Amino acid sequence: VPVLLLAFQVGLSSQDLAMFSVLCISQAAAKIDVDFDYDGPLMKTEVPGPRSRELMKQLNGIQNAEAIHFFCNYEESRGNYLVDVDGNRMLDLYSQISSIPIGYSHPSLMKLLQQPQNLSTFVNRPALGILPPGNFAEKLKDSLLSVAPKGLNQVVTMSCGSCSNENAFKTIFMWYRNKERGHVGVTKEELETCMINQTPGCPDYSILSFMGGFHGRTMGCLAATHSKAIHKLDIPSLDWPMAPFPRLRYPLEEFVKENRQEEARCLEEVEDLIVKYRKKKKVVAGIIVEPIQSEGGDNHASDDFFRKLRDIARKHGCGFLVDEIQTGGGCTGKFWAHEYWGLDDPADVVSFSKKMMTGGFFHKEELRPNAAYRIFNTWMGDPSKNLLLAEVMNVIKREDLLNNATHAGKVLLTGLLDLQALYPHLISRARGRGTFCSFDAPNDATRTKLIAIARNKGVVLGGCGDRSIRFRPTLIFRDHHAHLFLNIFSDILADFK
Amino acid sequence: VPVLLLAFQVGLSSQDLAMFSVLCISQAAAKIDVDFDYDGPLMKTEVPGPRSRELMKQLNGIQNAEAIHFFCNYEESRGNYLVDVDGNRMLDLYSQISSIPIGYSHPSLMKLLQQPQNLSTFVNRPALGILPPGNFAEKLKDSLLSVAPKGLNQVVTMSCGSCSNENAFKTIFMWYRNKERGHVGVTKEELETCMINQTPGCPDYSILSFMGGFHGRTMGCLAATHSKAIHKLDIPSLDWPMAPFPRLRYPLEEFVKENRQEEARCLEEVEDLIVKYRKKKKVVAGIIVEPIQSEGGDNHASDDFFRKLRDIARKHGCGFLVDEIQTGGGCTGKFWAHEYWGLDDPADVVSFSKKMMTGGFFHKEELRPNAAYRIFNTWMGDPSKNLLLAEVMNVIKREDLLNNATHAGKVLLTGLLDLQALYPHLISRARGRGTFCSFDAPNDATRTKLIAIARNKGVVLGGCGDRSIRFRPTLIFRDHHAHLFLNIFSDILADFK
Repeated sequence: VPVLLLAFQVGLSSQDLAMFSVLCISQAAAKIDVDFDYDGPLMKTEVPGPRSRELMKQLNGIQNAEAIHFFCNYEESRGNYLVDVDGNRMLDLYSQISSIPIGYSHPSLMKLLQQPQNLSTFVNRPALGILPPGNFAEKLKDSLLSVAPKGLNQVVTMSCGSCSNENAFKTIFMWYRNKERGHVGVTKEELETCMINQTPGCPDYSILSFMGGFHGRTMGCLAATHSKAIHKLDIPSLDWPMAPFPRLRYPLEEFVKENRQEEARCLEEVEDLIVKYRKKKKVVAGIIVEPIQSEGGDNHASDDFFRKLRDIARKHGCGFLVDEIQTGGGCTGKFWAHEYWGLDDPADVVSFSKKMMTGGFFHKEELRPNAAYRIFNTWMGDPSKNLLLAEVMNVIKREDLLNNATHAGKVLLTGLLDLQALYPHLISRARGRGTFCSFDAPNDATRTKLIAIARNKGVVLGGCGDRSIRFRPTLIFRDHHAHLFLNIFSDILADFK
Repeated sequence: VPVLLLAFQVGLSSQDLAMFSVLCISQAAAKIDVDFDYDGPLMKTEVPGPRSRELMKQLNGIQNAEAIHFFCNYEESRGNYLVDVDGNRMLDLYSQISSIPIGYSHPSLMKLLQQPQNLSTFVNRPALGILPPGNFAEKLKDSLLSVAPKGLNQVVTMSCGSCSNENAFKTIFMWYRNKERGHVGVTKEELETCMINQTPGCPDYSILSFMGGFHGRTMGCLAATHSKAIHKLDIPSLDWPMAPFPRLRYPLEEFVKENRQEEARCLEEVEDLIVKYRKKKKVVAGIIVEPIQSEGGDNHASDDFFRKLRDIARKHGCGFLVDEIQTGGGCTGKFWAHEYWGLDDPADVVSFSKKMMTGGFFHKEELRPNAAYRIFNTWMGDPSKNLLLAEVMNVIKREDLLNNATHAGKVLLTGLLDLQALYPHLISRARGRGTFCSFDAPNDATRTKLIAIARNKGVVLGGCGDRSIRFRPTLIFRDHHAHLFLNIFSDILADFK
């Protein structure tokens, strides 16, 4: 109260005053997320409510708005709770397609925005590849390099996930071509033919991907994506090899032998494709894989499968690109899902985005571009995202959020397995690592219905694959949130007709 | 002073205090940019200076840093002046590869960041395609739609320029395929073959581009880019047609007939390629062109050339995609460079990024995707950039910055033509529209030397093509900045050995 009074006396505007009160609130609430998180869902209308439906109509005049779930009030959203424009408050287990690391309106991030020395970073977006700010390397060290995967000490930032994979592909192509060249320099023919999209300047290299994989929607990424037809229909593509991804049978402990055979079959196919594509002069320069196929339906394979796949890549000289865009950032209980493989040399390149707030990729020094401007674009990411990420890293460490993901994930998965035992006609193949969990509904229609009912009961869920429901909560999703969800969902299943 | 005293009395931290003083400064300086712009360059070291060189070494441990010009102090940069970490203050005529619309640290943008109601937009980045904020459509109307090109009432936002063109291509491919299909639905064969990258699901469509054009560096964009070998070498590409872009002779008034013939030759080649590619079953679904080829060397063609090209696209049923990523945003004196063509139906799609702060593209309603999730990704742009852009639009209108670009550009180009008359062995083909000007140096070595000398005299310039120097100042570059530059540059040319 004295602050307000004095502020008026010195002639501050109501705007400055609002700023003041925000400062005070965030300082009071900064310590633990319990203080800023809501204590449960609160529903006022069905979702989408009348205001959302009105806004949908308005947006649909500007662009195809058919994918919109509802409109949000982000100012009121906090912690694990997403508030919509009709005043409904929902426990968010989807977190913007897995892209909100430490919940909505986290006090540490709100505070960061209020620090005068940070304003410039949000207003003056530079061309990072030529004119970075003085603290660029320092912020990379505080944020991305503090979690660099084993053996990968180089990092490049990009604006989104697709650009990250596209540039990871390019990095692999250039590295592979330089290996082929050996000590021979670039020829005049290469320089001339590349300008007109022809070999040898533009070699006929390929990236091997897996059926069910998703790596983005720009043309290079899309050629490696095989999750849903709607992503790929009508878009020209490239003749790149695609291998089957293991389709494991659950419960895993009952199908050990069958699953081992299934994984061996897929690995054999990978090697066959590498040989076949080399023969037809479409050399496989790299292999891209997700540690858990996410968009494609939360398809898991064993750590042993990935260790063997990594060996195959090394044996054939292919760059090994692990796409951690959805799995990375701590939600599996390790910072990177590939850490579960227990390898000293897990990858040549690891791409990231989403929860990392900036896109980009790590790579080995060996894959470093040999000249300026080869991996380049105007923005090369955004330092304001690096700033936010550095603070997110602080919060993850300070609050031990990886262990939290392991623990809360265990509560969640145990609960799902219990519900699966009770409702086997509605839930099967419950699976997951950390909070990165999922289960299968019997079919798409039931899945869609379950998601809609849950939403009207105050829980936001997302689907993936042709019938799965995936859990992608924030890193501050705690045991009690898992219990809250399980109670609500248990009632839904009991009433489901 | 009373504010500070009182602040101390109520126990505010030095951080809160710093916030206060920023508030006061920006409020005092908000009216016109003269108040916040510096009054000239101020050089303390050569550039890059010792601190920049030290930071380069540090960054080079993390990524290839060979493209870095120098490191910047963005907190101290204001208006048209870029300040580096060694305390050098330079008049910036390159503005982060043409991506700073209204100068550094513009008071209106600084103020925006300080408004408490805006904090959430910077902290809570949503998945815009499914869960947009309540004001999403409103902010699009305030910003992008307020400058929608003629006939294009649909807009989609993206995170960067490459993603914008990639998705513009996809929009054209889907539209073209639907035209071909007519009333026949999507077949089972299409749905199956698209999953494995094959026709008919992934049709063998192409995009026609021009030699010298630049449209980005992801694989689809790169297949349409033909400016420099270093961008394309070692990256697999697509067999897409590329037409010659007119190489005009200067001064234009002396070569009217020759230039007309040159443009006719290029247009004829475009039509030939469309026919040829249709015959080899690589149907040209779209044509992409920049109103001024920017990265490729500021290559201009006449308005008549573009009008005829637009007609050819229409005649052959190809989508006409105008890439305004570098030319858009007002620097040519019109908001979009294609407005100079004077057409009622200038394009089917217009892509943007850079000065627009967000990537994206406008398109006709006819090209609207016919289902959800076809043009989609996690972020679909960034509402915090839309917020900044809406304020940039206000400033552009309030300060009449399009007319300013026309006027300041006239001063600049007139001066360049004068210098060209005086130093024809150093300057040729001076050209431009608005402040979007350029000239040719006799060769790459001289160009590089001129840029380096200018930088040490306090002027940041950029190159393009194989020997051009391009001017890409902000929209608040005024007549007096043009005179300032011309005086400095005149001395440089007089002393040049």
